[in-house]
Amino acid sequence: MTRSENFPKWYQNIVAEADLAVSSPVRGCMIIRPNGYGIWERIQYLLNKRIAETGHENLYFPVFIPLSFIAKEAEHVAGFAKEMAIVTHHRVKMDGGKLVLDPEAKLEEPLVVRPTSETIIGHHFRERVRSYTDLPLLWNQWANVVRWEMRTRLFLRTSEFLWQEGHTAHADREDAMKETMRMLEVYRSFAQEDLAMPVVAGEKPPYDRFGGAERSFSIEAMMWDGKALQAGTSHYLGTNFAVAQDIKYQTKSNERSYCHTTSWGASTRLIGGLIMTHGDDDGLRTPPRIAPRQIVVVPVLRNNPDDAGVLDYCDRLAVELRAATFAGEPVRVLVDGRDGRWVDKRWAWIKRGAPVMCEIGGRDVQGDKVTFVRRDKPRTGDHIDSHTVSRESFVAGTTKLLQEIQDSLFAEAKARLDRDIVTNVKTLDDLQDYFGVAAETEDADEALPPRGWVRVPWKKHSKDEAGPILAVLKKRALSIRNAPLGQGATAAPCIFTGAPADEEVLIGRAY
Amino acid sequence: MTRSENFPKWYQNIVAEADLAVSSPVRGCMIIRPNGYGIWERIQYLLNKRIAETGHENLYFPVFIPLSFIAKEAEHVAGFAKEMAIVTHHRVKMDGGKLVLDPEAKLEEPLVVRPTSETIIGHHFRERVRSYTDLPLLWNQWANVVRWEMRTRLFLRTSEFLWQEGHTAHADREDAMKETMRMLEVYRSFAQEDLAMPVVAGEKPPYDRFGGAERSFSIEAMMWDGKALQAGTSHYLGTNFAVAQDIKYQTKSNERSYCHTTSWGASTRLIGGLIMTHGDDDGLRTPPRIAPRQIVVVPVLRNNPDDAGVLDYCDRLAVELRAATFAGEPVRVLVDGRDGRWVDKRWAWIKRGAPVMCEIGGRDVQGDKVTFVRRDKPRTGDHIDSHTVSRESFVAGTTKLLQEIQDSLFAEAKARLDRDIVTNVKTLDDLQDYFGVAAETEDADEALPPRGWVRVPWKKHSKDEAGPILAVLKKRALSIRNAPLGQGATAAPCIFTGAPADEEVLIGRAY
Repeated sequence: MTRSENFPKWYQNIVAEADLAVSSPVRGCMIIRPNGYGIWERIQYLLNKRIAETGHENLYFPVFIPLSFIAKEAEHVAGFAKEMAIVTHHRVKMDGGKLVLDPEAKLEEPLVVRPTSETIIGHHFRERVRSYTDLPLLWNQWANVVRWEMRTRLFLRTSEFLWQEGHTAHADREDAMKETMRMLEVYRSFAQEDLAMPVVAGEKPPYDRFGGAERSFSIEAMMWDGKALQAGTSHYLGTNFAVAQDIKYQTKSNERSYCHTTSWGASTRLIGGLIMTHGDDDGLRTPPRIAPRQIVVVPVLRNNPDDAGVLDYCDRLAVELRAATFAGEPVRVLVDGRDGRWVDKRWAWIKRGAPVMCEIGGRDVQGDKVTFVRRDKPRTGDHIDSHTVSRESFVAGTTKLLQEIQDSLFAEAKARLDRDIVTNVKTLDDLQDYFGVAAETEDADEALPPRGWVRVPWKKHSKDEAGPILAVLKKRALSIRNAPLGQGATAAPCIFTGAPADEEVLIGRAY
Repeated sequence: MTRSENFPKWYQNIVAEADLAVSSPVRGCMIIRPNGYGIWERIQYLLNKRIAETGHENLYFPVFIPLSFIAKEAEHVAGFAKEMAIVTHHRVKMDGGKLVLDPEAKLEEPLVVRPTSETIIGHHFRERVRSYTDLPLLWNQWANVVRWEMRTRLFLRTSEFLWQEGHTAHADREDAMKETMRMLEVYRSFAQEDLAMPVVAGEKPPYDRFGGAERSFSIEAMMWDGKALQAGTSHYLGTNFAVAQDIKYQTKSNERSYCHTTSWGASTRLIGGLIMTHGDDDGLRTPPRIAPRQIVVVPVLRNNPDDAGVLDYCDRLAVELRAATFAGEPVRVLVDGRDGRWVDKRWAWIKRGAPVMCEIGGRDVQGDKVTFVRRDKPRTGDHIDSHTVSRESFVAGTTKLLQEIQDSLFAEAKARLDRDIVTNVKTLDDLQDYFGVAAETEDADEALPPRGWVRVPWKKHSKDEAGPILAVLKKRALSIRNAPLGQGATAAPCIFTGAPADEEVLIGRAY
């Protein structure tokens, strides 16, 4: 199954064949397999470093949130009420040979399994903020969250997912907005530099903000099929949560003032983005910075007396390679010495996306050489492009090789993103023409050819005014992704209303 | 509040003053503060390394478990039924201005928030095991778990806690028992080498096994007050879960055979153990391997023109120290350049337990010297023992200094453990005399002087036979902790029954 034949099926196949995750017997929840979890551990390590370097501290808050907490901020509860897992009892008992809820163990107040933690963390802000000298509070948590989903796709939309959520409290709007933009930039640079995933950072339209936010920002990545993936969000929450939860501090001039808060998050969704950005028709490709194993050494064994020498050579090569560094860390090398035919291993590692695979046989040992395949450019037609160089030069060039692969994967995706944002759509008719047949449902839409995004001027519509625009977009399964940062003034008319436009926005289909 | 005046209050004070964790508005759930979470991150890093080095892979399984799964293994459900958080609904709605459960969103089958994951992981074993060539499966998960608790204590007993849980499947008893003992040894060496916490590894008595286990093993640490803390457990589950969940594989001789499984876990409880092992009357002490910050540099500022030079000297010192390594990692150094008086910072870091604190003033800068305090030996009487040496020799001696502190904390705790395991208790009367006044409740027991443990011979009693023994022990708030590994045969009579003993066990009070 190739990408162009059926992208959704291709995606499912990669997740299965690279053995990244599988569905579980629990509705909408996934099991993340070692190959997928290894990528998540790399994401955690690299993103956490950036979060720590910008002055944030990690804490851990309860998985349960009292229902009354969620109810405090009206927009917030509206945004999450329909997808919350609710705990109502704390004990079961046997009754007539069956396990049933113990009615005597019914909770006085139901508990929500956290869908996000603004309210429980807001409560702790309130406990910890006395005066302006306590601010800002810069907190982050790595945790699981639950949002009940009816239609799920591994990594992209699951009832439970893993994420980090940042929550910060500030003295004023200016400082909180600075934080909001700082973290958006952390996500942007992390996505581009570590995941090699080009993104556009911008502001979400007013009708599509996080429940309780004053302003919401996102990074949007373009998948191979041209659809958008919201890959990280950063929200300026104003004083909405502070007012709802009475989070106040004493100012320099001894007045009581509300804190301005922010929140920002990125999740296991990023793994879906990674697959749909870099995967090819042979399987997954992982950029070296994020790859759990950067170089896999496969011994080519022939069941003859040379095999011991080959294995020994592989082990010594691995030791040499591990002494090299890439992006400030020792190179991660695995010698795949398991039983099995080497060609099967070759395809297993191509599917799993190891950036470099060394295939070492007797001839390499005799010639003191290394034969290797680059996963970013594995073949010409049906021919596998393997390269043979001296061991010495391979070892000496490891850091550079990994950097080249990191760069080439980014460049390939960036060229696609640049190509597939079109700017010559001027009217709603153009839009209709460009995206083709109207699609009412996501499923119908799957079969359409990739068209990327259009960048068009619009007048910023509030939530109340946006109805007609949303109807137009929905008919085509489209949505406004964001208004890219750093754009100049626009003189063009709004594509929806003809009124003078406020800004340009990206429109496309999305996951 | 000193340790000897009131140990439980002293514990609470340390947790509060070192700012490790606080209670949350959610019953029994804690908020882990940055200082506590930093220790947990170190535990995760170091323990995970040992788990990976013994061949285990990390995965992630759903937080929810269908109630019917838990019900499959009879002993298992009996062990957990009374302390489970149960999800019954997946949506709330507004009703008369109030947020209520939506009766239309009631789950067909209730979901349990995982108290432990044997059954959901067992289900996946079944999906993944075909033949003997697939075995062993060696899986580990880092996750939050929930066991509803009525009486909670931060870190020691909380309704939600963080842990790792290992789950493995093997072809036969021998391989599974080898794994059970291997992981017990991983816990033992981790506790002793990384946490500097001496423990006794041994087997739990038959009546006190994990629900569904054939054999349960633990490491038991002795807290400063002489009580035991079960700090990690490793269970051989036999074929109990495999039979309940039909986990079978094809043998070499083409037969279908049940897998033998194991599970093992360690949790945020370890942080409680760390506090009660190393804390002293001044606050927490953290062994260097586990300390988030090994060396804290406090500039002694006088609000005069020399201050800039002092700060600069501190920063340069930090750079030099970070180039040193300890236990295979770069030394972790923090320069505490925040506003505030240096004496306040001194006490803050003493309370938080940083292994080494450098206090750098103008005189140090002039003399190119470093003045420092070792947290393991901070003072003589009321006098703080600060040492002044040349900068050069301090930097050169950093690795050795940290190792000395690691060793001295272990030695101190080990001497206490060795001293407080007594072996001259021969009868039940002796036992009564030794532990003093009978204590029916844990609270009454708090006030008793520390007596440590006794090591006595007993005849191994099954669950059915153990009633009278448990009654005797319970009256004194005592329990059998474990039967230490590696003991020889014993000729003595059972302390409870006078029958020939099978082994010696440790008896003490416990957390």
